[in-house]
Amino acid sequence: MRSEIKPIYWRNNAIYVLDQRLLPYKIKYLRLKTAREVAKAIKDMAIRGAPAIGIAGAMGLALTAYHSRAKTVEQLLAELKRSYETLRNTRPTAVNLFWALERVMKIAETRCSVDELRRLILDEALKIMEEDLEANRKIGFNGSKLIDDGDGILTHCNAGALATAGYGTALGIIRAAFEEGKKITVYACETRPRLQGAKLTAWELMRDGIPVKLITDNMAAFLMQRGLINKVIVGADRILAKTGHVINKIGTLSHAIAAKYYNIPFLVAAPTSTVDFKSTPDEVVIEERDEKEVLYIDGKKIAPRGVRALNPAFDITPPDLVSYIITEKGIYRPEELRELSLTT
Amino acid sequence: MRSEIKPIYWRNNAIYVLDQRLLPYKIKYLRLKTAREVAKAIKDMAIRGAPAIGIAGAMGLALTAYHSRAKTVEQLLAELKRSYETLRNTRPTAVNLFWALERVMKIAETRCSVDELRRLILDEALKIMEEDLEANRKIGFNGSKLIDDGDGILTHCNAGALATAGYGTALGIIRAAFEEGKKITVYACETRPRLQGAKLTAWELMRDGIPVKLITDNMAAFLMQRGLINKVIVGADRILAKTGHVINKIGTLSHAIAAKYYNIPFLVAAPTSTVDFKSTPDEVVIEERDEKEVLYIDGKKIAPRGVRALNPAFDITPPDLVSYIITEKGIYRPEELRELSLTT
Repeated sequence: MRSEIKPIYWRNNAIYVLDQRLLPYKIKYLRLKTAREVAKAIKDMAIRGAPAIGIAGAMGLALTAYHSRAKTVEQLLAELKRSYETLRNTRPTAVNLFWALERVMKIAETRCSVDELRRLILDEALKIMEEDLEANRKIGFNGSKLIDDGDGILTHCNAGALATAGYGTALGIIRAAFEEGKKITVYACETRPRLQGAKLTAWELMRDGIPVKLITDNMAAFLMQRGLINKVIVGADRILAKTGHVINKIGTLSHAIAAKYYNIPFLVAAPTSTVDFKSTPDEVVIEERDEKEVLYIDGKKIAPRGVRALNPAFDITPPDLVSYIITEKGIYRPEELRELSLTT
Repeated sequence: MRSEIKPIYWRNNAIYVLDQRLLPYKIKYLRLKTAREVAKAIKDMAIRGAPAIGIAGAMGLALTAYHSRAKTVEQLLAELKRSYETLRNTRPTAVNLFWALERVMKIAETRCSVDELRRLILDEALKIMEEDLEANRKIGFNGSKLIDDGDGILTHCNAGALATAGYGTALGIIRAAFEEGKKITVYACETRPRLQGAKLTAWELMRDGIPVKLITDNMAAFLMQRGLINKVIVGADRILAKTGHVINKIGTLSHAIAAKYYNIPFLVAAPTSTVDFKSTPDEVVIEERDEKEVLYIDGKKIAPRGVRALNPAFDITPPDLVSYIITEKGIYRPEELRELSLTT
């Protein structure tokens, strides 16, 4: 295996994020020094993937704390609250962002000096990152039990090292199965409109020498019909514990329906930071992104003048289509997720 | 309505085909004078769509006849046989091409002079074109009965005027419903890898003032879940009378499975020249096109170096997913298609 991909790290009072808009052609890190810059990087999808934007959000708060000139805890808290709002209002669907921001703001309530608080907040952000990497390795270990030697595995979008602190969720399972010597072939859906499958997943897997073939999203059902796919594994941006619904990149629902039709296990891999214990499906905001993402590909227009496009960034897969949800704490059926709330 | 789109016509001893690879940015006709040039235009998809390539094939034979210097009927037939082979070996899946070529070759068996035969062959090719246009208007008339005021209609690829002699099959039904004053909204799937939905269907519908929204292929199931889609209408490249299977552009199967899951009627529009009365699903060759169509979009690479792609151009939708097949002769359930063989 080649050196691991680091999508985000902290160094010298700044955070560095691998600009995923330039992959696979260019490896360039953005140096971000303020929460506002982090918010922009999340919004513009320089950094993306539910766990990764959670980590970036937490680090955004750490930047605010670190560079603050506040003399009192109250002043620092006021600054943190402003950054919190800025970071919160970037992308509405993935729950990890809110989870990570809340977790850091909770630490900010600790009674201590301004300097101690700065340290505590940075420590918490770094801890969120470390825990995510650890969770992904456990997800990989847990999930690879479900993978058989010789499996053809369909995956959608990028739930890989790039979407997390490293190793990945869906790709974490694929990596673990591959490391255990299982002969697998991954079918990576290109994932229109932003092509994360073609640009990120294919790149990650090629880099690690894991056999991968690129397909357009609309080929998935046909490959299932032809018997090439034995498992579908995707990540998640939000999983609803109350109902078992899975919110993930647009196109996931389509694969889940086809997998059900062909009796192929549909697996969702995510850390428990992706689980939303409160919301019902109606309460989830599905981000509608700029229609230009559909009308243009890499800056080139692909549609006639004047035509309008829709661009929902996520969809909602109902629990009857989901076989298992694989977390760092174990494997659950969608209806069993409620139990998790007792242990977290 | 603006002037009708003419994807192919005969003039001054040549055929002119609208180069669909340049749409919607450029309207340019290719002038083709030999069967070999026609074969290349079909292979490279300058002209595409099952009925349109049938017409082009027939006209390719007419070009051979027209420009032949044969002194005897035997010489002419030998030349026609060579052109027939060249045209036949362009694209393997759509059956209209084979149907049209056979029909013209049948005419070539007429006992008459070389000059009379030239005339008969051209007449037959032109007749195939005229009949196709007529069939599409009937398909539109028949199919629009199934469309309700206010319907949201999903379509895939381009089964429009551009794919036929004019008016279209799936888009023929949409045009007829619109002409009858029904308020409809069309959701056009972009149709990766070649983007016929974005480039051709959106262009045709915008041109006629029919409300259309462009979506990526992977959004279809989500729009169904949200209640925006009331009907799915697609064309076909081949329909198997024996079993009721529908072969159409890759991605069709995925929409059919989702439509079944959400109880949305799935309609297939095609002239009877698309019906294959002989083959079983196993006997149909699904064209595998160059992987570059997936790896590049409009000449720009979208994937990392070295990654391989699959590129099946069509898929096979089983009859249990098809509500109705709409032909110029009437509306059929897939299992009723066998009856057609008695009347043709």
